[in-house]
Amino acid sequence: MEEEFLKVCRGEEEADLLLLGGLVVNVFTGEIAEHAVAVHGGRIAGFGERPAREVLDLKGAFLCPGFIDGHVHIESSMVTLPEFARAVVPRGTTAVVTDYHEIANVLGTEGLRYMMDLAEGLPLDALIMLPSCVPATPMETSGAVLEVEDLLPLREAPSVIGLGEMMNFPGVVHGDPSVMAKLEAFAGLPVDGHAPGLRGKELDAYLAAGVESDHECVDPEEAREKLEKGMYVYIREGSTAKNLESLLPLVDSRSADRFLLVTDDKQPEDLLVNGHLDAVLRRAVALGMDPVTALRLVTLSPARRFRLPGRGGIAPGWWADLVVLEDLRDFRALKVFKRGKLVAEKGEYLEPHRQGPPAPGAMKIAWERIPSLEIPAGGGRMRVIGVIPDQIVTESLLETPRVEKGLVLTDTERDILKACVFERHRGTGNLGMGMVRGMGLREGALASTVAHDSHNLVVVGVDDRDILLAARRVEAMGGGQVAVRGGEVIAELPLDVAGLMSTLPLEEVAARVRALREAAARLGCPLREPFMALSFLALPVIPELKMTDRGLFDVGSFRHVALFAD
Amino acid sequence: MEEEFLKVCRGEEEADLLLLGGLVVNVFTGEIAEHAVAVHGGRIAGFGERPAREVLDLKGAFLCPGFIDGHVHIESSMVTLPEFARAVVPRGTTAVVTDYHEIANVLGTEGLRYMMDLAEGLPLDALIMLPSCVPATPMETSGAVLEVEDLLPLREAPSVIGLGEMMNFPGVVHGDPSVMAKLEAFAGLPVDGHAPGLRGKELDAYLAAGVESDHECVDPEEAREKLEKGMYVYIREGSTAKNLESLLPLVDSRSADRFLLVTDDKQPEDLLVNGHLDAVLRRAVALGMDPVTALRLVTLSPARRFRLPGRGGIAPGWWADLVVLEDLRDFRALKVFKRGKLVAEKGEYLEPHRQGPPAPGAMKIAWERIPSLEIPAGGGRMRVIGVIPDQIVTESLLETPRVEKGLVLTDTERDILKACVFERHRGTGNLGMGMVRGMGLREGALASTVAHDSHNLVVVGVDDRDILLAARRVEAMGGGQVAVRGGEVIAELPLDVAGLMSTLPLEEVAARVRALREAAARLGCPLREPFMALSFLALPVIPELKMTDRGLFDVGSFRHVALFAD
Repeated sequence: MEEEFLKVCRGEEEADLLLLGGLVVNVFTGEIAEHAVAVHGGRIAGFGERPAREVLDLKGAFLCPGFIDGHVHIESSMVTLPEFARAVVPRGTTAVVTDYHEIANVLGTEGLRYMMDLAEGLPLDALIMLPSCVPATPMETSGAVLEVEDLLPLREAPSVIGLGEMMNFPGVVHGDPSVMAKLEAFAGLPVDGHAPGLRGKELDAYLAAGVESDHECVDPEEAREKLEKGMYVYIREGSTAKNLESLLPLVDSRSADRFLLVTDDKQPEDLLVNGHLDAVLRRAVALGMDPVTALRLVTLSPARRFRLPGRGGIAPGWWADLVVLEDLRDFRALKVFKRGKLVAEKGEYLEPHRQGPPAPGAMKIAWERIPSLEIPAGGGRMRVIGVIPDQIVTESLLETPRVEKGLVLTDTERDILKACVFERHRGTGNLGMGMVRGMGLREGALASTVAHDSHNLVVVGVDDRDILLAARRVEAMGGGQVAVRGGEVIAELPLDVAGLMSTLPLEEVAARVRALREAAARLGCPLREPFMALSFLALPVIPELKMTDRGLFDVGSFRHVALFAD
Repeated sequence: MEEEFLKVCRGEEEADLLLLGGLVVNVFTGEIAEHAVAVHGGRIAGFGERPAREVLDLKGAFLCPGFIDGHVHIESSMVTLPEFARAVVPRGTTAVVTDYHEIANVLGTEGLRYMMDLAEGLPLDALIMLPSCVPATPMETSGAVLEVEDLLPLREAPSVIGLGEMMNFPGVVHGDPSVMAKLEAFAGLPVDGHAPGLRGKELDAYLAAGVESDHECVDPEEAREKLEKGMYVYIREGSTAKNLESLLPLVDSRSADRFLLVTDDKQPEDLLVNGHLDAVLRRAVALGMDPVTALRLVTLSPARRFRLPGRGGIAPGWWADLVVLEDLRDFRALKVFKRGKLVAEKGEYLEPHRQGPPAPGAMKIAWERIPSLEIPAGGGRMRVIGVIPDQIVTESLLETPRVEKGLVLTDTERDILKACVFERHRGTGNLGMGMVRGMGLREGALASTVAHDSHNLVVVGVDDRDILLAARRVEAMGGGQVAVRGGEVIAELPLDVAGLMSTLPLEEVAARVRALREAAARLGCPLREPFMALSFLALPVIPELKMTDRGLFDVGSFRHVALFAD
């Protein structure tokens, strides 16, 4: 602590800034009281009036610590980190704890370095839980494999604070050596979990191995068990998964400091229209949560859980990450300070707008190894992936194929379309092909490089020409999403950062996502989120039948299966 | 985590122990519910029945995490660490966070090493906050000086967890370089404070410099300010300082996790008769605190504050430090488990009794430089230390001396006795001599090597022969406390560990402390705690007039002063 700062604390030298007339939300005591707050050198110098170069009257507005999202994947916003910051900082978020699981699956440590470099100089701290499960599964080809040896050098980076969501819970429960090596390497640091539905003795084993948190609770009884067993429960309220209403009754005065409010995944339009943690806070209070408790769950609770010194509260010496709120119902941020600097005002971002550069090298499709998209007919019935609206699980159907000249054809009458997954990371030429029902296209094709968790290129279409055009167009953009009809691209979103994020502004990305959704509807797709359905077609850890770059995968029997069942 | 342990968690192999029928006090949820708890390899393997080699029915007793005293000085117990463990473990304490401030002032790092070695193999974890203020003051001669360079090598020891109470708060507030160097060296680790009465802007500066806690709050308003400013408030309920009743109203459901219950200093008889944290819990509940909240303040709260992984709760993978309580009113420990091993039952300690060895080298008085205890008469009135019953502050009096043959004599008629402080650490031959009123001896002398904070040898007596005998006897014991009358030792307590602790059993120490007190009373002393008064005669940071090995010290003017005032 420099001498000058102590002088300012003692009131002997001028502070940079004195905030007067604010109602300080004290997350330590749970009380709200008017205090003058002095800020100097990016930190809180103290409570009470002091000489200052600048004095700002908050006129009875609420002064809170900046919000901390304890679990969010930046990639889901589909924009680069600076653009994400532009979206969330004016909403009051000054730090996120993020797990770059998606970009790591595509670009490995290079992707992590890309994100870490982008974080420099932003008014948003991006604190990193290193991805623990790259690849997420061995059933498909990912862009990278991160073993403990790959993680160890990154562990020392200043922004790295722990090990990210350990979704390989069977591996933990059964003591898989490569998983255990990672847990051991991060012993003593925060370790996040991901264990939907895991309970009882298996949960005990998962926790005994060192996992400390879960953000996948949907059911309150499951959450209660996890809470009782010492886990931090992150209540997730994202664009898709919304668990707040279900879990909120568990939060009482005795257990409140074991909970966090997090977003996990926020889609571009949702971020733009509804906001970030401010939206979660609004919802929590609308559902009856005490506002100061709700604020604590996005300030002091994450700061303590992740052992982030000097964050999550307003106290002498702590970082002056501050939000001025109009009220504790709408949580509209009138002003946001990052390390004492005014960085947003009335929703407007005051920092320079900048984009991340593209992250190329994410599209390596070995076309020379892919002679055609034809599927030769086999005997009997074929397996068809059955998409269920608004769900990420699928059905495994058996259908009689439409066959012409010995080839399996799509059949729009029965809504049986072709689904292809092109391996895009390593130029293996892997191409998984099969049939899908439920996407509803009557013409054209949809393609996307966002396809959890390995993010290969997934395309669903009515005819091979449009499927190929969609795939080629996505490749030309360096990754992305397209809708194609009759040999023409009718909507597209370049995702030139690893095929996951765009270097376009958030507004433009949101508009294009909307345009893509509308285009899909015009092609006949009845789903509300056609590209999300596309994305989850390729996720081989969620039941029942999925498509990977290595072909169909039956989750129930946990093995790849042939197209023809008989 | 070894494979075998995970198998036990999963219920596939036998646990060491299954505890059935206990009401588990869940400090995460605040609830109490019956659960079977499996223990294996010293850790909790999980909740729910499992195969086990040994099954124990708790028959409806309460099962709690072992208690953690977040701030205690072992030296105040006057026994060695193994003996302290024998006293507190059967009371339910399984870990202490301790600051070896006293022994460090006598023996420096050698004293720390002595305590660390003794901790090996005990059923009590002694986690160390390194002494930050040795010497406590420059006004007297201590046995050691610990600068940041001395602390740094110790910081890496497994039992060292942070920096102990930073009592030099003026040094912090004003940015003293040697103090700041220590704070910097421990940045990121827990740093404890000690700042009685510090408030406002000076408190802001103290906190800004990195101090995180205080255990010196007496006044609730002061505690509230410290709480509001993000400090952890340790509510102290020791043998002398009792702040629970005053501070308890501050603990509510919103602030509870910012508080700890600690003992700070527990004297031998108090430990023996009333107990340790169990006594504090009894008192807290008697004063109206919810029992589970009270338990949390001695389990999860200290564990989180000091970032002690796997402690403070009953959860899979956490250490099986457990207390079985008869009820939540008397907090009588029926059984205590340390890392899964039964170490105490119905108050009986089941571990081997062992003593620490003496820690010699703590008595280096240069008698050859001390020709006599004669005080030559000066002109006019002399300064006399005025002892105030039950207080550690003294008065500064002015009295006309009784003089014979040019020498100042004691005067039992006016209760003016001789007070000597012999430097005992370095053989300097320093001897501070003066007069004291209020000790009330009509004959004989009392001597002690417990004399905060430098712990020189302090003796008060009626005649030089008894004073010398007392000093010599203490020296011969390697430190201690004695009462002497007419050339005979009438009571004594050897403190052969640095002159602070005894290698005798606690019961014997408590009996001798009582005998010394009774002996003092027989000599005429009216004080309830004559040896405590003796101890604080030499503490030159508490007003008003004190005796050091370098002579009288006037705290108000903060300088050494001559015996004769005129």
